Amino acid sequence: MGNSFGNLFRISSWGESHGGGIGVVIDGCPPRLPLSLDDIQPDLQRRRPGQSKITTPRDEEDKVEILSGVYEGLTLGTPIAMLVRNKDARPQAYDEMKEKFRPSHADFTYQTKFGHRNHEGGGRSSARETIARVAAGAIAKKILSFDGVLIRAYVERIHDIQSPALTKIPTLDEVESSPTRCPHPKTALKIEQCILDAKKNGDSVGGSILCRVGGIPVGWGAPVFDRLEADLAKAMLGLPATKGFEVGSGFAGTHLMGSEHNDLYESRDGKVRTSSNRSGGVQGGISNGEELYFRTAFKPTATLLQKQKTVDSEGQETELMGRGRHDPCVLPRAVPIVEAMTALVLVDHRMRHAAQCESFNFS
Amino acid sequence: MGNSFGNLFRISSWGESHGGGIGVVIDGCPPRLPLSLDDIQPDLQRRRPGQSKITTPRDEEDKVEILSGVYEGLTLGTPIAMLVRNKDARPQAYDEMKEKFRPSHADFTYQTKFGHRNHEGGGRSSARETIARVAAGAIAKKILSFDGVLIRAYVERIHDIQSPALTKIPTLDEVESSPTRCPHPKTALKIEQCILDAKKNGDSVGGSILCRVGGIPVGWGAPVFDRLEADLAKAMLGLPATKGFEVGSGFAGTHLMGSEHNDLYESRDGKVRTSSNRSGGVQGGISNGEELYFRTAFKPTATLLQKQKTVDSEGQETELMGRGRHDPCVLPRAVPIVEAMTALVLVDHRMRHAAQCESFNFS
Amino acid sequence: MGNSFGNLFRISSWGESHGGGIGVVIDGCPPRLPLSLDDIQPDLQRRRPGQSKITTPRDEEDKVEILSGVYEGLTLGTPIAMLVRNKDARPQAYDEMKEKFRPSHADFTYQTKFGHRNHEGGGRSSARETIARVAAGAIAKKILSFDGVLIRAYVERIHDIQSPALTKIPTLDEVESSPTRCPHPKTALKIEQCILDAKKNGDSVGGSILCRVGGIPVGWGAPVFDRLEADLAKAMLGLPATKGFEVGSGFAGTHLMGSEHNDLYESRDGKVRTSSNRSGGVQGGISNGEELYFRTAFKPTATLLQKQKTVDSEGQETELMGRGRHDPCVLPRAVPIVEAMTALVLVDHRMRHAAQCESFNFS
Amino acid sequence: MGNSFGNLFRISSWGESHGGGIGVVIDGCPPRLPLSLDDIQPDLQRRRPGQSKITTPRDEEDKVEILSGVYEGLTLGTPIAMLVRNKDARPQAYDEMKEKFRPSHADFTYQTKFGHRNHEGGGRSSARETIARVAAGAIAKKILSFDGVLIRAYVERIHDIQSPALTKIPTLDEVESSPTRCPHPKTALKIEQCILDAKKNGDSVGGSILCRVGGIPVGWGAPVFDRLEADLAKAMLGLPATKGFEVGSGFAGTHLMGSEHNDLYESRDGKVRTSSNRSGGVQGGISNGEELYFRTAFKPTATLLQKQKTVDSEGQETELMGRGRHDPCVLPRAVPIVEAMTALVLVDHRMRHAAQCESFNFS
Repeated sequence: MGNSFGNLFRISSWGESHGGGIGVVIDGCPPRLPLSLDDIQPDLQRRRPGQSKITTPRDEEDKVEILSGVYEGLTLGTPIAMLVRNKDARPQAYDEMKEKFRPSHADFTYQTKFGHRNHEGGGRSSARETIARVAAGAIAKKILSFDGVLIRAYVERIHDIQSPALTKIPTLDEVESSPTRCPHPKTALKIEQCILDAKKNGDSVGGSILCRVGGIPVGWGAPVFDRLEADLAKAMLGLPATKGFEVGSGFAGTHLMGSEHNDLYESRDGKVRTSSNRSGGVQGGISNGEELYFRTAFKPTATLLQKQKTVDSEGQETELMGRGRHDPCVLPRAVPIVEAMTALVLVDHRMRHAAQCESFNFS
Repeated sequence: MGNSFGNLFRISSWGESHGGGIGVVIDGCPPRLPLSLDDIQPDLQRRRPGQSKITTPRDEEDKVEILSGVYEGLTLGTPIAMLVRNKDARPQAYDEMKEKFRPSHADFTYQTKFGHRNHEGGGRSSARETIARVAAGAIAKKILSFDGVLIRAYVERIHDIQSPALTKIPTLDEVESSPTRCPHPKTALKIEQCILDAKKNGDSVGGSILCRVGGIPVGWGAPVFDRLEADLAKAMLGLPATKGFEVGSGFAGTHLMGSEHNDLYESRDGKVRTSSNRSGGVQGGISNGEELYFRTAFKPTATLLQKQKTVDSEGQETELMGRGRHDPCVLPRAVPIVEAMTALVLVDHRMRHAAQCESFNFS
Repeated sequence: MGNSFGNLFRISSWGESHGGGIGVVIDGCPPRLPLSLDDIQPDLQRRRPGQSKITTPRDEEDKVEILSGVYEGLTLGTPIAMLVRNKDARPQAYDEMKEKFRPSHADFTYQTKFGHRNHEGGGRSSARETIARVAAGAIAKKILSFDGVLIRAYVERIHDIQSPALTKIPTLDEVESSPTRCPHPKTALKIEQCILDAKKNGDSVGGSILCRVGGIPVGWGAPVFDRLEADLAKAMLGLPATKGFEVGSGFAGTHLMGSEHNDLYESRDGKVRTSSNRSGGVQGGISNGEELYFRTAFKPTATLLQKQKTVDSEGQETELMGRGRHDPCVLPRAVPIVEAMTALVLVDHRMRHAAQCESFNFS
Repeated sequence: MGNSFGNLFRISSWGESHGGGIGVVIDGCPPRLPLSLDDIQPDLQRRRPGQSKITTPRDEEDKVEILSGVYEGLTLGTPIAMLVRNKDARPQAYDEMKEKFRPSHADFTYQTKFGHRNHEGGGRSSARETIARVAAGAIAKKILSFDGVLIRAYVERIHDIQSPALTKIPTLDEVESSPTRCPHPKTALKIEQCILDAKKNGDSVGGSILCRVGGIPVGWGAPVFDRLEADLAKAMLGLPATKGFEVGSGFAGTHLMGSEHNDLYESRDGKVRTSSNRSGGVQGGISNGEELYFRTAFKPTATLLQKQKTVDSEGQETELMGRGRHDPCVLPRAVPIVEAMTALVLVDHRMRHAAQCESFNFS
């Protein structure tokens, strides 16, 4: 339970950090979508470990295999199964974790909930699971590209280093120009140094990722519960290490008066538009045709290369020395994951809207 | 689509601001729960309009009727249907809204998505719909009370007026002692004045509500997608006027180093506990036995008693003069709604956990 | 749990035989559908008790009220709630049933499953609940009528009296010309007598209903699990008193050789058609453009005006004398219910097909 | 869409006849279940082709690999992924099918619905997909065995050869003693000859499978829509080649008078029992503690080694000569599939019942 996401475009994720691999099944993908590994592998490369000096040195190729649902280069409309085998697993590196709970990790809660766990590399709670989301999200992105929808996430802040706001949605090249995935070059350099400093001290840092989406037509979202921003919030808080979500003006906007905050309508280029966009592209849970943007908070990585107090599975207090390979900051690698989950939410709502509102003509 | 919430304890909400009424159907409620109107009506009173000088003067009794699912004072295990009739409706007050889109409201998006809307009082997008959630949530709260779970939400900040942190979860009386539902008396007075000032100017204010939950056992939550905090985030961003959500240390926590942020385990009273609680009661998406707490941002009310620029349904620019009855600040009345949605999330996860993890014995 | 049906066009049914009433909420109905009570009440009249001398004399008007989701004669795309109040309830007529389990009824299983039940009129297990389905199904039927889909069910056999096969789908008038809802006049007369004979003896009879659907395009159905016939089978076996379902050639077809059973393709009127239709309009779980037809078996009514052996809630053996008002044969009133469930299945699959297969263009 | 089954114990099936393989993901499996390949492979052997002279000679080992969800011999409570690679694929054998639609197969409907298909071996519509169901069902069976629930299906009739009724549920050995999976030896011999005769003529036969389940406690099933028999009906009609389903007395029972059909209650061994069992173990959609039994009709195999009329993808009439490897009768291999789907339905309802009715104590 809890390992599927979406309604009409529905993914089921499976796999552990150390085991047969990580995989995903997509049910509901439209047929006749041109699809090849080249549509999927690039986002996995952006997510994979070992891609730069600021990420974990665990070296996984993360080569994806499409097992079903695609034939002669086109999707079949039947389930698409994808598999990434685990390669560079070092189960023995986790021996100490078998008995000791890592602070601010899921070891204790998994052990207590299930009464049994695979402790190697965090098992199912490992961020390695997000491979499934990125692979599925890449397909969702491709579908949306035919609608002219563009999703771009990037690192906006690490620790106390905040990028200035960017007027335009940056290009992929701009985001990828730094291993930090912060598209503002000066900020990116400072962020890189901040991460390296944390790494040197066996410590870690967090921050926030901004996701911006252009090209969404008016009408996606299914209030009252499945508002577009509600499903995005669930998608983001369903990612490992996330602590917060805000859409549009977010928490800061609640310091404004209503008269300062409202987005006034105007007529622009023959369309109903808003002159400001504190709503963040959604009103009443439905996209309004403006840019959709939201922010996700990621905590500093819980794994530290330091000695920390903890208890063992017998409840005895002890200490745990962080070892092995880890990211001093998860945000650069989380960027494609945020994009993937966003794409999954959007394509699902696009299909729901088509089914209920666009496929009938009663006149 | 989008009007049901939950999996095992599932509610379906219906109704518009001006029409036959507002109602809810609950499917999955356990049988033999003692239940009467006295369990439900009090929370509706906390939500209802006209309860104090800082809320809208619309005067609705909001008397709930239980139509099914309860017999001789006990739930039957079959669907519980509840109905609140609309009474103090003034459709003519909304005549202007038929043609003009209210800024930062859902008029435009509903009109465009559905091609047809009930403009009276906002129709389905009216916050009046939350009656359904409060009624259902009251039942969820009662169920959880048998598990010793206590849910308490309160206003923590309005505009720039922030309450100091409270060590203990306040009592219901403490929260209800001020019409602001801020349990810190000095802050409450300032907030009351702030809201009255906004009202006087035909303006509005927003802020944040803190929700704190005690007594949750270890093990509730269904990663990887249906993490406890993910479902709470969806529940909160599914409420009208919300712009953000954070659990535990939230956005502020991302400014800390990992070594400052981690919650270390210790043995306390024979239990595995954490010495701090920046995690906010969840780790890896599963409750860890500590206090669950999270914060929700509500924007300033969009309806203003001022003239605002907008466009009409023909796309012509025009002005709209806010009229009628509105809340200059939605937070005091939103407190029971936040509690209701929290209860719905928790009882659902409690049942899921029971089904998968507690009902089997394979030894 | 278990009181909702459908995915995209989803209904939630609630209510008991004796209580506040019976109702239904529809989520996912397309907007802008012209809808009035005249679209719904006629099918409720066909289902209501007291309509002829071969049905129960319980006299319920079953007047439906639309509480939400329709505005100025058009659906809003938001939930449609409908309510039928219970009127002619006689709880005291059921006093004996409080302690004694009626044979082949759900008294014992409800009591044991839930530990508590409303025994009056069978409570939730009463066929009165099907009002919810008929009301919702009437809307589904209307939607489908815009696609040219026509659903017609009728009584084909009662006890041992079997109607000859009808070449064409009969008209509504033909079905309604007899209170038996058997459109073959000579058979209808015999069936009427058979039911009256059973009634006279305080006994009951069963039989089978044939449902035929014309106008379905090729492509509805979602294998591998949600085949069109699988969802229809669930819909039919989800009706009270049903014991069997067969599509196309059904059980009889399994006595044929493959070479006798296969439907050969031919080109007819520029379309791919089959020269026979033992498949019953579905192949591989997907509609093939031929007439869809299936048969549902209804057992003889369990309530008898006779003394029967049973046990009481203490487990003591005793006797129960059937009293009150009942149908000696449920099939005539079940005809609109079968049609309603069929419509619900079809409109759901129509919407799923639109979402996945018709709303994209990747070329 | 349509490739998942179940609510709490939910499987997602994927794969085509000719491609990367067939697989399944199970979400919701309880943790700590002892599980190894030995629990799963035997049922796959019963389903696999090439097991006897009355089945297809396609020679697939169908060795299953568990990719996730099991650790040190116990389930983790996280998703279980299983994979069976395709081996003995002969795509060229299907070249003719690329352009011509096989009669009574899904070629035409898949092609029209999706606009694209993998014609090799029937692609997704191949019965090879049922590997996924059998693998998942084997786990469900094991779970149920701890509750004392025993599921046994067997061939009851092929063409016109009907087995006499068996008083007791046969043992596995009795069912497996004949390649026909008819546990009545004399009938089995006749059936074997019947199938061989059909095979010799390039023809095929159908029949019915009876499934009997002992040990179900009172209370499983979720009316009004998710009745136990409704979910079983969906499970059965969701299998390839099925045309009918009946529970308990089925269609035959509708020829009885109510006074002949009712199951009277009696007190037996301190329990409430019925003296007959025409209900088939369910009343009002809920198990009543008696043996559950139901019957499924399978049509004669559509693939014939004969020349048949059909049309091609251009709509031109043509002929198709059946080639390759096929089963002249699918029922013997369908027996473990029926058991698997039954187990999936039952374990899901067991968990639902535990969640709603057994996990609370309000006194």
